[in-house]
Order: sequence, then C-alpha cells, then structure tokens
Amino acid sequence: MAGNSFGQLFKITTFGESHGEAIGVIIDGCPAQLHVDLEYIQSELDKRRPGQSKITTQRKESDTVKILSGVFEGKTTGTPIAMLIPNEDQRSKDYSHNVDVFRPSHADYTYQTKYGIRDHRGGGRSSARETAARVAAGALAKLLLKSQGIEIVAHVSSVGKIDAPNVEIINAQDFIDAREQNIVRCADPATAEEMIEFIDSIRKQGDTVGGKISCYVQNCPVGLGEPVFDKLHADLGKAMLSINAVHGFEYGSGFAGSEMRGSEHNDIFINQADQIKTITNFSGGIQGGISNGMPIEFKVAFKPVATIMQSQHTVDSHGNAAEISGKGRHDPCVVPRAVVIVEAMAALVIADHWLRNRNSILG
Amino acid sequence: MAGNSFGQLFKITTFGESHGEAIGVIIDGCPAQLHVDLEYIQSELDKRRPGQSKITTQRKESDTVKILSGVFEGKTTGTPIAMLIPNEDQRSKDYSHNVDVFRPSHADYTYQTKYGIRDHRGGGRSSARETAARVAAGALAKLLLKSQGIEIVAHVSSVGKIDAPNVEIINAQDFIDAREQNIVRCADPATAEEMIEFIDSIRKQGDTVGGKISCYVQNCPVGLGEPVFDKLHADLGKAMLSINAVHGFEYGSGFAGSEMRGSEHNDIFINQADQIKTITNFSGGIQGGISNGMPIEFKVAFKPVATIMQSQHTVDSHGNAAEISGKGRHDPCVVPRAVVIVEAMAALVIADHWLRNRNSILG
Amino acid sequence: MAGNSFGQLFKITTFGESHGEAIGVIIDGCPAQLHVDLEYIQSELDKRRPGQSKITTQRKESDTVKILSGVFEGKTTGTPIAMLIPNEDQRSKDYSHNVDVFRPSHADYTYQTKYGIRDHRGGGRSSARETAARVAAGALAKLLLKSQGIEIVAHVSSVGKIDAPNVEIINAQDFIDAREQNIVRCADPATAEEMIEFIDSIRKQGDTVGGKISCYVQNCPVGLGEPVFDKLHADLGKAMLSINAVHGFEYGSGFAGSEMRGSEHNDIFINQADQIKTITNFSGGIQGGISNGMPIEFKVAFKPVATIMQSQHTVDSHGNAAEISGKGRHDPCVVPRAVVIVEAMAALVIADHWLRNRNSILG
Amino acid sequence: MAGNSFGQLFKITTFGESHGEAIGVIIDGCPAQLHVDLEYIQSELDKRRPGQSKITTQRKESDTVKILSGVFEGKTTGTPIAMLIPNEDQRSKDYSHNVDVFRPSHADYTYQTKYGIRDHRGGGRSSARETAARVAAGALAKLLLKSQGIEIVAHVSSVGKIDAPNVEIINAQDFIDAREQNIVRCADPATAEEMIEFIDSIRKQGDTVGGKISCYVQNCPVGLGEPVFDKLHADLGKAMLSINAVHGFEYGSGFAGSEMRGSEHNDIFINQADQIKTITNFSGGIQGGISNGMPIEFKVAFKPVATIMQSQHTVDSHGNAAEISGKGRHDPCVVPRAVVIVEAMAALVIADHWLRNRNSILG
Repeated sequence: MAGNSFGQLFKITTFGESHGEAIGVIIDGCPAQLHVDLEYIQSELDKRRPGQSKITTQRKESDTVKILSGVFEGKTTGTPIAMLIPNEDQRSKDYSHNVDVFRPSHADYTYQTKYGIRDHRGGGRSSARETAARVAAGALAKLLLKSQGIEIVAHVSSVGKIDAPNVEIINAQDFIDAREQNIVRCADPATAEEMIEFIDSIRKQGDTVGGKISCYVQNCPVGLGEPVFDKLHADLGKAMLSINAVHGFEYGSGFAGSEMRGSEHNDIFINQADQIKTITNFSGGIQGGISNGMPIEFKVAFKPVATIMQSQHTVDSHGNAAEISGKGRHDPCVVPRAVVIVEAMAALVIADHWLRNRNSILG
Repeated sequence: MAGNSFGQLFKITTFGESHGEAIGVIIDGCPAQLHVDLEYIQSELDKRRPGQSKITTQRKESDTVKILSGVFEGKTTGTPIAMLIPNEDQRSKDYSHNVDVFRPSHADYTYQTKYGIRDHRGGGRSSARETAARVAAGALAKLLLKSQGIEIVAHVSSVGKIDAPNVEIINAQDFIDAREQNIVRCADPATAEEMIEFIDSIRKQGDTVGGKISCYVQNCPVGLGEPVFDKLHADLGKAMLSINAVHGFEYGSGFAGSEMRGSEHNDIFINQADQIKTITNFSGGIQGGISNGMPIEFKVAFKPVATIMQSQHTVDSHGNAAEISGKGRHDPCVVPRAVVIVEAMAALVIADHWLRNRNSILG
Repeated sequence: MAGNSFGQLFKITTFGESHGEAIGVIIDGCPAQLHVDLEYIQSELDKRRPGQSKITTQRKESDTVKILSGVFEGKTTGTPIAMLIPNEDQRSKDYSHNVDVFRPSHADYTYQTKYGIRDHRGGGRSSARETAARVAAGALAKLLLKSQGIEIVAHVSSVGKIDAPNVEIINAQDFIDAREQNIVRCADPATAEEMIEFIDSIRKQGDTVGGKISCYVQNCPVGLGEPVFDKLHADLGKAMLSINAVHGFEYGSGFAGSEMRGSEHNDIFINQADQIKTITNFSGGIQGGISNGMPIEFKVAFKPVATIMQSQHTVDSHGNAAEISGKGRHDPCVVPRAVVIVEAMAALVIADHWLRNRNSILG
Repeated sequence: MAGNSFGQLFKITTFGESHGEAIGVIIDGCPAQLHVDLEYIQSELDKRRPGQSKITTQRKESDTVKILSGVFEGKTTGTPIAMLIPNEDQRSKDYSHNVDVFRPSHADYTYQTKYGIRDHRGGGRSSARETAARVAAGALAKLLLKSQGIEIVAHVSSVGKIDAPNVEIINAQDFIDAREQNIVRCADPATAEEMIEFIDSIRKQGDTVGGKISCYVQNCPVGLGEPVFDKLHADLGKAMLSINAVHGFEYGSGFAGSEMRGSEHNDIFINQADQIKTITNFSGGIQGGISNGMPIEFKVAFKPVATIMQSQHTVDSHGNAAEISGKGRHDPCVVPRAVVIVEAMAALVIADHWLRNRNSILG
C-alpha cells in the first residue's frame, strides 16, 4: 500500500523522481466526453514550474506535459489518461554531497531507514517536483468542475508574519487575474509588495520562510462529501496535508472557532431568493461533512523550506557528526508556487466527491 | 462510496444511528494472535460515554460492547471482529420538533438535500454517537500497538481561550492517570479546574464552547507512513477531521511554523546513545510523511457544539422562516469526551501504517 | 487486507463464524430511497437455510434477519445498512473431534498454518454459513435491480452427471416458480426428479456429489462493466469463485467456445425493432467486459461437499496419521441451497456495476 | 471506478490505446531492494509481442520497455515503478472502415454505447495490446516471486479440440525451455506440431480458433489467499477472466469435479518427510481459498479471435445493416502469445497475496 494514488472515483496515481527520466500521472475514472484543453493544463503547470521569478528556485524546467492516452479528438474517452512530464535540467551533481548525509528536516533519514535504499538525487521521490504531476491532474479536474460551473481559487494569504486582509471574491477569474499581477500570488497588491520584499531579503540571507495559502470553492452544489470518514473537509485536509511542507489545515472558523461560543458560532439559515443560505459562514461551506452551498473556505500552513544556504550540523548514515551546507537551487519561500498545487488538490477532492455524490439517491 | 470505512490494512467499517437499535463496527485486517482485553475496550468506551459528569450530556447510555466474531479463546483469529453497542436511552420524542426544521450548524439541511430523506432522531447517522464505534475499534488498535510498545495519549489542552501549559510526558500511563484525575481531562490540574469552572458557567447560560486536544504518540518506530498521498500526518489529519465538530488540525510546528524561518525551524540531527534523534521537534515526529522516531505531536481544534439551550432563527424544509429552541441532552463542551476519540482515531492510523510498513522492504 | 469486503460502490462486509454468536453484514453505498422489503429478504434467506428438505443438512437454523441501521420508515437513507443473523442451533460438540485433526479437503490445515489459531467449531469462518450474510445483502441488491427492471435467476442445471436441458426463460418469476416446485431447485421437473433420487441415494451411502448452477441476468442495460481488469464477467467470476466449493466458472460459450472457430462463434448484430441485438449469444451478454443488452449467462461448477459420513485417513496437527469419521449434519449435495447464493453474488456484482456505470459519461 | 488497477498491495495501473502514443503501467507497492533484471522483463515481453512467428499477427512492434521511475542502481526503491512501451507500427488506416460499423463479437458496440465516444483505431483500449503492460508488470512480480523460490509456468494445453497430454513439471525452467522449442508454446512436442499445423490451416481459411492454457504455481508456501471474498482462486479467476477473449476458468478438479463424489474427490493428507502433503490434488493447491503447499493448478479457456478474414453481416451506429470484411493484421489463434499473459496475471495475484499474507499473524 505504497500510497501513490489519491481519490476514489476520480483517481490519480503519480510516479517519478526529481532526477529520474520523467514524472507523470495516470487519471482513472474521468467520465467520457470532457473537452480537454491542453493549453489550459500547460498554463497551470507554468504557474508551478521552477525558475519563473526572482523569488523562486532557478532550476530551469519547462515542465512540458504530454498526454499519452485517454483522449481522442480532444475529448476524454473514459479510459485512463496518462500524462508525462520529462525532467530536463537535472543537475544531479548538486546532490553528490547528500549521498551519505541526512539533511535536517528533509526525508533523507526516514526514507533511508524505511527502505534501506534511496535515490538521493534531489530528494528523489520526496522532492516537491512530484507535485507537478498533481497540478497536471488537478487541471483536468478543474476542467471537469468548470463544466459544472464550480470554480476553485487560492492565493497567498500570509508570508511569515505578514498577513493579507480578506479579499472578497466577486468573480473567480478576476481574483486569479489580480493574484497573477504579482510574483508572490497574493490577491491584495499592497500586501503582495511587502511579501515580495520580505522574501527577497530572506533569500539574500540564505534563509527561508513559511507562509499560508487560503483557498475557496465557489458555486459548489449542496450535497458533496460523504458522512463519517470521508467528510468533505476531511478529504480536503488529507489532500492539503499530503503536499510537501504543509503543517496545518483549518476550514471555516478553524482554530479560532475553538475559542468561540455556540451562540456566536452557529450559522443562521435564511431563505434568500428561494435559496437556503446562512448569514455567517463559520461552517466554511460544509456541515456534517457535506457541502451546504455556501463558499467552501480553508487555509493551509506551510513550514519554511528546509534547504537553506547556510551551514548546519547533522549526522551521516553511520551516525557520525557531519556538517552540511546548502547547495543546489531552492525556493526561499514555497507558497507562491504552491498556490496552484493547493488548487489542484482541492479540485481533485471536489471532482471526486462530485462523482461520488451522483450515486447518493436511487433516482 | 459511502465512506463508512477507514484504514487500508487495519480497516474498520462502522454503522448505526443515534436512535436506531444499535451501533457497531467491523474490524477487518487485525492480525491473528492478538490478546483481546475486553475490559480494557469497555473502559475506553466508558471515557466517551454520555452522562459521566456534570459537564457532559445527561443522556444515559451504558455503552456496553459485545464482541460477535473474530475472537476465539481470548485471541484474534485473523477473521473480522464485529463489535456491537446497543442503544438504550433513546428519547426520540426529544427530536420530534426537528422533523421539518433545519437546526443551525447541524447536518440536517445537508443530509436532507443529499439524500432526500433523513433519520431526524437525534441527528441519526450524523450524531457523534457514531464515534463510540470508533472508540471500540481504536481500543483494539491500541492493544495491538501496546503489544509493540507504542503508546498514544491525549488530553484537553484548551477550552475556549484557556490554554494549558505544555505537560512533559515521562510515562504514558502516568500522563493518563493525571488527566483522569479531573472531569475535563486536562493533565494540568490547575488549568483543569479553571476549565471546569468555565464550562459549568457556559452550561448554565445554555451555551456551548469549543476547545483543543493535544495528542502524542510515544515510542513510534522509524518508518511509519507512506510517501506522497498517504503521509502519516495526512492520514492523521483526515482521521481527526473526520471527527464531529473538528475544524482544524496541525502537527509539529503547525500554523505557528508558517511564521518561522528555516534556520530556526530545522530539526538538527544528533547521535544520542547510538540512536539518531533531533534536538528540536518542529517536525512533530514526522519527516517526508514518515515517522522519524521522535514523539509524534499534533493538535486538534473543536468548534463549539451547535445545540444550544437558546432560541434561534432558522428555516424549515419548505424554506419558511422558523424558530428553534434547544431541547434534548447535550454537551456544553465536547472536548472532555473527545479525548478518547482522538486517541482512538490516532491508534487506528498508526496501527494501519504499522501493518503497511511491514511490506516496505523485501526482506 | 483480510478480504471480507466485496464491491466498489455497492460494498458489503461480512463477519461471523459458524458457531459464534451471530453472523452479519454491513452494506455501504446503497443509494437512498430504495424501498426495503424485509419479507422478501427473509424469503431469500429461507431458500438457503439448513433443514429445509430431506436432501439438505438437518441443522435447524431459522436464519431470522434483523436490520440494525440504515433504513428509516421503510426506505434506505444512504447510511450503512447492518443486518444481523443470530446463530441458534450450534452443536459445537459435534466438532470436538476436529480440534486437532485436519479434515480432508477442508480449510482446517490452511487456516491453522496461516493464522496459527483457528475456531475449529463447524469450520468457523470457513463454514458456508457465512454465505447467509451474502444472501441477505444480495436480496437488497436484487431489490435495487428490480427497481430498474433487472432480474437475476438461477437454477440447478447439473447434479453429478445428470444434466438438465436448456430451459427458456420467458418470465423471471415463472422460472423461479417452476424451480421452487421441487426441492433440488431445477427448473426442469423431469430432471429434478432424477436429481433428487440420485442425491438421496448418495446421502444414504454417506457420500456427497457435486453439481452445476446456471444463472441468467435478464433486462440488463447495455454498458455495465469496466474495461480491462473489472470486466463484468471477471467480477462475476470472482464473485462465484468466492463461494465455498466452487471450482469453475464460465460465461457465454465458456469452455466449449475454446473449441470453436471464429466464423461459428461470432455473434452477428441485427437491428430488431430499433434495438441492436445479436442472433446468437456466444458472448453471454458481455462484449469487451461490458454488457451488450443480451441476457447474461454463466455457469458455476461446485465440487462435492468434503464432509462425508465415511471414515477417512488424515493427519493431525503434529503430523501424525489419524482417522476421521464424518459427524455433524451436512449436505449430500450443496447446489440446491447454493442457487440463491449464486443469485445473490450476481446481484451484488450487477448492482455495483450499475452504480459504477452512472459515472461513465460526463452528461 | 474505471477499473484500470489490479491488486491490493502489489498494485498495478495500466494505460494506453492500441494506436495511441504508448502504453504503460505503474506498479505501486513493490517492496524496496528487489533486484530488477530489465533484460528478463524484456524477454517476457518478447514472448507476447506480435510478429514473432507465422502463426501470430504480422503487426511489427518491438515492444521495447523503458523504466521511468522507482528503480535506482538496479534495485527497487519502494516508490512507484513506471514502465513505458511506445507504440510503433500503428497502421491506423487499417481501421478507418471501422469508424461507424460495429465488428461482431468485438467491444465496438458496448464501448460506443457506454461512453458515447470511442477510439476506434485498432480497438483502442479494448485491444489486447493493453496486455503488454500486464506482461511487463507481471515480469517484475515474477522476479519478486523468484526471489522467494516461487515459480509460475504455463503452456498451451489445447487448441480447438486438440488436447495435450498432462506434462509433469519436474523443473520450472526445463518446462519453459521445452515449451519455447515450438511456436505454439505447448510443452508436449508431438501435440505442438499438430496444433501448429491446425492453426496454420485455420489461418489460410481466414478463420480463427480458440484454445486453452494450463498454468502451474510451483513452490507456493502454505497460507496465501484470504478467506471469504479474496480467496486465492477467486483472485486468480478474476485475473484470468480479465484477459481478452477468456470465457472460462477452472482450478483443481474444475468442471469435471462437479461430477465426482466426495469419497473420490477428497484429497487425503499424508506426512511426507515432515511435510504435510495430499495424495491427490483435486483441490488444485488451494483449500478454503488458501494455498496448501501443493502445486497450484488452473486452466483458462480462450474463445476464438473475433476478427476473421471473411465477410460478415453487422449493423452500423445508425442501426442500419452493414457488411464488414476483416482487414488489419490479426492472430488466427491467441493462445501462443497469451501464455505469458496468463503467467503474468498469475504472478501479480501470487505476489499480491504473498505481501498480504505477511500480515496474517501479529508475530
């Protein structure tokens, strides 16, 4: 049960190492007759790819995706869709110093102990490079959801201690356009500037910093999510926590909600133009694990990137003290590139539950 | 894909409604030859059952568990273990007023819309009563883990804005004993007193309040957790978020970690008596999704219980404005009874990954 | 992965031993709003229960089923449906002689070696008693299929070397009625008489005999079955082979088809009243793993029951030679009681694929 | 639930169409540290590839496999292993006549109805070309099993009505060597000659013929297989029935066993040099769904290939009468190339259950 698959009905399986020949994904369960916009899928990958700005890693990967199966004359056929992204700029030599030393707060030690063998080049399978495959699959999920009017948008809401104010989302595309105006991908321009400056200063110190991403699902129909274990927010939480560097997840009122009273926290139902809505949305669009038609809102916390351009103490595989100094090309802050990963994972969860919900009633 | 199963190898399936005849669980995949201590399982259920103190609901349920299969002469046989907990004190009449009205921040509206039918008595399947089945199964998972020296302990670390200080865990049983000294289940006696007083005042106001539970896995071997989607903390996160009323999950440095720098956050490896350890534990015992041998630490945020003894506005199933006033027997604060649920879900995840990890190496 | 679950969307999990307290099943994934006819479910169980005629075992079990959850006011609610069948007539003493001896062609030796422990009473989990839980679940699946006009019927087509002629099925209920006219459950009355006489003579010799069951799915829509691994006939095959004592499965032309030429075997398409049909049905209603709208036809071969009322050589758990003489109450021929098991398993497969097929097209 | 995955712990997912860019497979769950012999994997593919002799299709595919991930310095790392087989000789034009016409006994009609769209080129996903991916994955499974001493061998035991006599297997490699001496892959040389002659005559008539493959698992340890639904033979049956053109499966005594009496059929246990064996093997090496240490034996029936070089009546997608004449390059008899597919699927099942069985006992 090696855990490289995600989803029940809209199911993906990813493969590939950072410095292997290619990474890729198979999507099994996408219904037939979905129009596949390859340009859109590529544009999503472009938002994740390295080397896109001064505040991201300088590794150069075009991350050009190729569809190998499952699409015929521009539409899905119901058969598995394989997507391949070749690795190009693999400077494996950058990692020769890692063969035998465990980098602090990386997966070197745990992989080595679990498997007794590891592809040390660039972190191998533990590299966030794997998430490119998720973005490709997530883009397809977004196309499926868009065909149903459902939109998923995210942006960087915090970098270190710099928090963006709440940005009201009137139109999903406008929100994305605003966010894409700046390289940190925060929809509030003033905060964005501050964040960029801060990340740049961190980068110059050879250090890194964490941040948070806020994500919203707009126009989600009522009824998505399965009670008990596969609650919609439980699956969203797992999806987010499976992204490299994520240390926390909250939805709706989140951690702050645990300090509130029931009388403040309850979302009062009202009838608004023959649609049942709630006045507040502390439930984050999900009640009893099932979407209630209000916007779904959640937040994801990313720890600082572990690779820093500073010298650190550690041990080698023989347990001897060692020293390690950061080499290679890394991100000073992961959140600008992670926005589209968060969206992709959210899209995979929502698409999966959209399919699952089609069987809730005998009909 | 109704989502009533959890786990891959140590797999449970629960059933039952709040006011039906019984609730229960089947555990499939427990290895043969585990000694089954029924008294222990019952004692775990006793910690969750209603009516145990003045700060919990007064519903009276003995929650007596019965094993129907899979155990022979005191040991597991490798066949599915079915456990049954009959419902006893079902005052369904308490819920007659709910037939047609959607209680704020409950699952009434979403269930009704998803299924077109719902068992309205006591929330039916959406009731936290379902978690008794999880506690029973989790107790068995704990027995399996105990046989390997792994211990799981949790306590109430916050009620509303009252936070307990960090309590060092020297011995798991001592920690549990300390926690069980008070009815709020906080291991710090002074804070516990404050919490109890606060909950009691909230109860008298007919209101409710949220809280947080901190959980620790002690003596977890290195190597548990599968890279990519089934990271150990991702599965823990899903497990916790699947518990009723949970709105947030963080592990290790959590949300606070997103404000830190890499140079502060990295856990430096050291060799301690021929064991590789880290000086700090911001990783929360998990690196790259795999346990690293340090204590696993995570925190779970619970929103305030939605049922309050106050009058609230809402709508009925026809979309007409309605008013609802809390009746029935409910908890002013859910966390004291949820401690053992958090532990149970953690045990199910760790037991599952312990079994999964046995196949990591060809050996 | 103990394998006590079956199905992907209409998913069942069974539990229980022959001489334990009860056996039962949880059905997870049945859509809401299916009318549940408990009398029908019981009547199906009555066709499988022991003691129903002179040619079946004389163990007396009423096999009274009780629904514990998932049904409200006569309809499914979308939550898991638990059904319980208490064990009544457990003469465990009949099996005291088996504690330490491996009965030939039973599961004693393999269970003991696999688990190092076994519930020896009546075969424990390996007893065909487990199939009562399948029949209960299968009856619910049949109700779901009936609501869609799909009917599943089977009968005994062979006992030993006695083969029934092909019986044309004009109406499913008529076929069942004809079959239920005799205790061997063969729809051809003349053959039935011959079979009964033969089984009775076998019984008097303390011996047993095998047989075959033919099953038909009527009015199955086009499109059920998933290409590649989950072909409809592959899932039917697995379902049948999972029934105790089954040694073979074939559909359509089956084994005989392997001796034919393509020019004889191809089923020619024709347009019949605006419906595409085939002239012959060597494909058994399934092409490329997907139902084609023609009747689905398959045959299941059962070996003779292993428990005979004769003395046999064997070994005990220490590897010493031993002798065993049949005791207990057993069937001289299993097929009359297995007809409804075959139907139940077929219903579970078809119901599952009916749900799965609802997501084939984006729609 | 599109069904393109197989296995629980040793899990494969295949993708690709006959005339797309490539086919391939991801293996997830192979333990780390297995030595990967790429030459062996390629040699297995060579036994399945088209164009290898006069009695197979003349389509020319080198079927050169490439490993994209999961292997490092010649060993598995525990991460998913992706294998890619590019399509080379795609004469899609050969299929232009099929766009709108349903070929008899093919999957054209069912795919078109199920999905409303289909890749008509060469059968698309329904083509047996997909099985190359299975052979690649199966070869890896064989390597895993070989490392444990378990061998899987198969040969053509029947072509049409020509049956080979039973061939005793003393040594697995010798058996394979004997089989590979002739192009029909029957281990009995005299029968092989007869079969080849017959297939060649069938081919000249533009016709096709079915056949049977017998498969044996040698040195399988006691204990593989999970009781109830995932019985070892049930999973083997599903695996075989999922291969294109398979219409029947039997193990041990099979269909003939249904005509026998218990007193003849029971396999008597004996102690042979401190190992428990059975005198006969009507159980086919499996009792109660679990391997008993005797050789596992089963037989698979293949219908004749549906594509014949003769003119046939059919209908088009508008329901109009049409005529179709075989074009393209096809096999007169599928079994010689299917031997290695049967072995591959058997290896996948056995490897999966070998991993599953490692968790049967707490140990």
